[in-house]
Amino acid sequence: MRIALLGGTGDIGQGLALRWAYDTDHEVLIGSRDAEKARTAAESYETELDSRGVDRTVNGFANEMAADRADVVVLAVPPYHVGDTVDSVAGKLDEDTILVSPAVGMKGDEDGMHYHRPGAGSVTAIAAEAAPDDVSVVGAFHNLSADRLANLDVALDLDTLVVGDDPDAKDIVRRLADEIEGLRSLDAGPLANAAEVESVTPLVINIARYNDGMHDVGVTFE
Amino acid sequence: MRIALLGGTGDIGQGLALRWAYDTDHEVLIGSRDAEKARTAAESYETELDSRGVDRTVNGFANEMAADRADVVVLAVPPYHVGDTVDSVAGKLDEDTILVSPAVGMKGDEDGMHYHRPGAGSVTAIAAEAAPDDVSVVGAFHNLSADRLANLDVALDLDTLVVGDDPDAKDIVRRLADEIEGLRSLDAGPLANAAEVESVTPLVINIARYNDGMHDVGVTFE
Repeated sequence: MRIALLGGTGDIGQGLALRWAYDTDHEVLIGSRDAEKARTAAESYETELDSRGVDRTVNGFANEMAADRADVVVLAVPPYHVGDTVDSVAGKLDEDTILVSPAVGMKGDEDGMHYHRPGAGSVTAIAAEAAPDDVSVVGAFHNLSADRLANLDVALDLDTLVVGDDPDAKDIVRRLADEIEGLRSLDAGPLANAAEVESVTPLVINIARYNDGMHDVGVTFE
Repeated sequence: MRIALLGGTGDIGQGLALRWAYDTDHEVLIGSRDAEKARTAAESYETELDSRGVDRTVNGFANEMAADRADVVVLAVPPYHVGDTVDSVAGKLDEDTILVSPAVGMKGDEDGMHYHRPGAGSVTAIAAEAAPDDVSVVGAFHNLSADRLANLDVALDLDTLVVGDDPDAKDIVRRLADEIEGLRSLDAGPLANAAEVESVTPLVINIARYNDGMHDVGVTFE
């Protein structure tokens, strides 16, 4: 399977790219608005993997080209760029493409981070509204510490919650999540339940701030 | 320490009463709007504890009397009764009383449960607004499965998130949480961060619904 990480030069994109390249045989494509930036990031991921004895090709492209080549397109961009990013690649998506939304809207103040629920109901819903009708949108990978994800020395031992209205698309994304070692996917229901998933991210950040030794804390459900 | 569970005849009240009575030496008082109902519930908890070889006195009172006698008052009532309940016992609280808010506002639809954020910002904030100025309010025990809590055969192995603006009150509530076997308290910051804590409850209910074998699921942070 070919996975494109749009915004794959950013922290969550880097983490997912490294984990999929390290733990699976899926082809990993890095997308960026700036193709040169994508190629540079892709090379640095190759170098990181090579230093661990893993010989993998990771290619960088402009977002449109990465999306065009991929079966699964992850919107690893800030929440306020999700709509624009989907618009910019919409012509390259077909009915077999799955769009994955990991972004979360937050606002910080002196007390901590707070969930900022978009008018659409969730960032995942923004992605779904922007996507062509025949493209399935799945929410996943919201509450993961980017540092922990990107550090291949650290075991994940975390859960990720998956929401979506298309059962087949959801199954594929759950499988991609479960193939990352130490990550377990759980079903959180339809896309309408995305806000409850997204709102865990500010909580996790608050816990990291207020408890010693929990810098890269994540969530599990037992 | 004396702990009053207002609404202690309900499911979360029952669970906390049984756990504190079973795991600690704190005095547990059951409160209800109907004193007779409180006494009946208290007796049933004593019977349950007695069947496990634990000889404990649990007393039931009208809410006002339970609050009057307690050091820590837990508002184990539905979210829409939190304000009224605080009002009804306000005259019995003094500056040494700690009010604890575990309630969460939710709305359900065909997709699942959704967080219903009150105008005050959180149910914990509603409790704080209704409380006399010199009474400390702490949010805790939000995301616990009532069935799992009330079933003393089941190990908890769960976290509970504590929010509050008074560090001493928060410490006392965290200690009371940590004294329940298998429960670990984490600091989620000031009261202004309560919504991020409360909103985990609908998520946990959605996970229980959409994943096999996770009926009494709870949350941990690692």
